[in-house]
Amino acid sequence: MTETKKAVLLMSGGLDSTTVLAIAKAQGYEVYALSFDYGQRHSVELDCVKKIIAKSTVKEHKIVKIDLRAFGGSALTADIDVPKNDQLDEGSTQIPVTYVPARNTIFLSFALGYAEVVGAYDIFLGVNAIDYSNYPDCRPEFIEQFEKLANLATAVGVQGKGMIKIHAPLIQMSKADIIKTGLELGVDYSLTNSCYDPSPKGESCGRCDACHLRLAGFQQNGIKDPVPYASS
Amino acid sequence: MTETKKAVLLMSGGLDSTTVLAIAKAQGYEVYALSFDYGQRHSVELDCVKKIIAKSTVKEHKIVKIDLRAFGGSALTADIDVPKNDQLDEGSTQIPVTYVPARNTIFLSFALGYAEVVGAYDIFLGVNAIDYSNYPDCRPEFIEQFEKLANLATAVGVQGKGMIKIHAPLIQMSKADIIKTGLELGVDYSLTNSCYDPSPKGESCGRCDACHLRLAGFQQNGIKDPVPYASS
Repeated sequence: MTETKKAVLLMSGGLDSTTVLAIAKAQGYEVYALSFDYGQRHSVELDCVKKIIAKSTVKEHKIVKIDLRAFGGSALTADIDVPKNDQLDEGSTQIPVTYVPARNTIFLSFALGYAEVVGAYDIFLGVNAIDYSNYPDCRPEFIEQFEKLANLATAVGVQGKGMIKIHAPLIQMSKADIIKTGLELGVDYSLTNSCYDPSPKGESCGRCDACHLRLAGFQQNGIKDPVPYASS
Repeated sequence: MTETKKAVLLMSGGLDSTTVLAIAKAQGYEVYALSFDYGQRHSVELDCVKKIIAKSTVKEHKIVKIDLRAFGGSALTADIDVPKNDQLDEGSTQIPVTYVPARNTIFLSFALGYAEVVGAYDIFLGVNAIDYSNYPDCRPEFIEQFEKLANLATAVGVQGKGMIKIHAPLIQMSKADIIKTGLELGVDYSLTNSCYDPSPKGESCGRCDACHLRLAGFQQNGIKDPVPYASS
């Protein structure tokens, strides 16, 4: 009898983390999903998470409330306008205003605590270095460094002698490849949300960076994005 | 004109972080103090923090609410009894039940986000590897690794080319040395709390690990601990 492999998954309700959920399950992991209520403007995110989780089989789902608004500093949590039609030029080193200071470090730290409590050695997240190359905490070197830290930071890491793995299976994939992979695994993308600034009814704006990337990804797969977009 | 050096300080209201506050100020830093309301049993901690901050000069003080109880797994946040007269034997590798999974990783991650927002390159915390040698996240190698991560994780780290420093000035000091240093810097230890299980009135129990260490530290300095202890 082999023991079930447990994994903690950072789950945002977006296209990326929903694809990672399907990948982790296809790899035989029992999934402990972790989401955050962090004062994000696009709280429609959490509604999506709940719907996706309800249709999937996960061992447990926790939503942890944290107040990233206490510091401000990002268009996603403070009163800064989300930019429209304002994608960065290729090769730019500017960091977008939608970057949330230390967000992935904070999210991974909580995932690590959760992993420690449930006895998981594997943490999955949907970061992507291609589409978000200017977010410092979406780069492969950040993920590698966090893995090293995780194995020093916790009882499970220290006693397991470096067994904690941070899995970022999408990190070098294009949005089109991510969607292709998800479709092959049966992901229902109609449940996901990627928009930074959805309408109160949950319609995507179609104009922010995240919508642009998502729409292009579906287009490259020759199919229509199943989520509703505001018509204006 | 030299620019003011800004530092973020993790502030718990305990003897250690209060000493670190005095050290950071003696080194000329403008201090942004950060505390957490994390469902800790000993919430008298936050009352102490507020009193200490009120008597000190800090640039700003933030209390961030986070729910570490969502995961459980520690005597400090879950319904597990805090051990009494139960200090670990020297050389033991057992991790105490008062250890909170990934706590310092989580706290440092928030400190990093705060540092990024205020433009600080220095983060101070009062971890101690001597008295808490079995807490994985109180060891020097953990702190060094977090510093590496911090310089990859954030805009301020990446653009500052590795300028973020994690300062743990107490890490190799005994409790007696910490108290000696604090007294020389004028720290008022009557405002601090170290007890894991204080009475509702805020009296220290005198019996938990933290009280034992603190009492011994004052004794070694030949002075009486100024905080009240429950007489029973």
